[in-house]
Amino acid sequence: MLNRVVTISREFGSGGRTIGKKVAEKLGIPCYDAELIQKIAEESGYTADYIKEEGEYTSGGWLSTVFTDRTMGLTNQDKLWNIQSRVIEELAGKGSCVIVGRCADYILREKADCLKVFIHASIEKRAERIVRKYGEREESPEQRLREKDKRRAAYHRFYTDMKWGHAQNYHVCLDSGELGIDRCAELIAQLY
Amino acid sequence: MLNRVVTISREFGSGGRTIGKKVAEKLGIPCYDAELIQKIAEESGYTADYIKEEGEYTSGGWLSTVFTDRTMGLTNQDKLWNIQSRVIEELAGKGSCVIVGRCADYILREKADCLKVFIHASIEKRAERIVRKYGEREESPEQRLREKDKRRAAYHRFYTDMKWGHAQNYHVCLDSGELGIDRCAELIAQLY
Repeated sequence: MLNRVVTISREFGSGGRTIGKKVAEKLGIPCYDAELIQKIAEESGYTADYIKEEGEYTSGGWLSTVFTDRTMGLTNQDKLWNIQSRVIEELAGKGSCVIVGRCADYILREKADCLKVFIHASIEKRAERIVRKYGEREESPEQRLREKDKRRAAYHRFYTDMKWGHAQNYHVCLDSGELGIDRCAELIAQLY
Repeated sequence: MLNRVVTISREFGSGGRTIGKKVAEKLGIPCYDAELIQKIAEESGYTADYIKEEGEYTSGGWLSTVFTDRTMGLTNQDKLWNIQSRVIEELAGKGSCVIVGRCADYILREKADCLKVFIHASIEKRAERIVRKYGEREESPEQRLREKDKRRAAYHRFYTDMKWGHAQNYHVCLDSGELGIDRCAELIAQLY
């Protein structure tokens, strides 16, 4: 019998991580996110900051790195992907949990009984949220979001061959900007 | 104050129409679908069958018709689109309701307070459902689904300029094959 895992993919600024934590609290199961990064770091010998940058958030053109280095064998990103996959499989094997981000739905597709969730929100609502949470930057919040969206979609596409944000890839997709963080968490917990 | 309307877009065979009816029953509001087609028919002078064929389900290459006739002015599909838009606006203006299909979410984007829902399911679950509901045909159910999916997506894209099945276009997307028809209806009624 496979463990029941909630995987949450989310647009940057949509509050998916907060929703994941709330769902986990409601269900009394662990939520992996920063902890996961830490664990990957321990296994890989990279620092947590490096992994955070390279895993999804990298600001310096990882795509070009992937495409130029791949002919030479595994890139750092590929190695990271492999470690990350192993860590996620281990966590899901230990027991029920919520996993936020990191293509966990794809990694666990045959290893766990997943409730696959995607959280999104309009660019306006997300812009408001990231300014509130992370403060102003030199770039406009809309620019930051578009950049992150593009990178996340490309990363996801590259490693999973699935289109980011396609409803068909998930059991439930929710607009957290319209429905609110708490209501999303309630719904997911209810579906679990 | 705009009326609250549930719009349900759905993949063929996903049970979206049944879900719409159940939601409407739960909420005690009308559900428009076949009735809507009838009303469009009355206004347009076309027969209900013709509209059903041309509106979404046409089996005979409407795309080519659209592209060749458009240089000559409005095509039949364009006229139908205009009538359909007017009918949907009227229905939504009369009071709260559920509207299944027909790009109602797009048509009402500034005219009603919509809860925008998308219902989908895996091709296997939908194949099973259409054979159960509509019987066997010469084409395999998978072929029929792929054909319908392609046409519906093209129609939707053409008139709304939005990508069919993109989570970001909806407040809630649900996999009826995994969650079940009744659970989907409950969730939507709850969110209303």
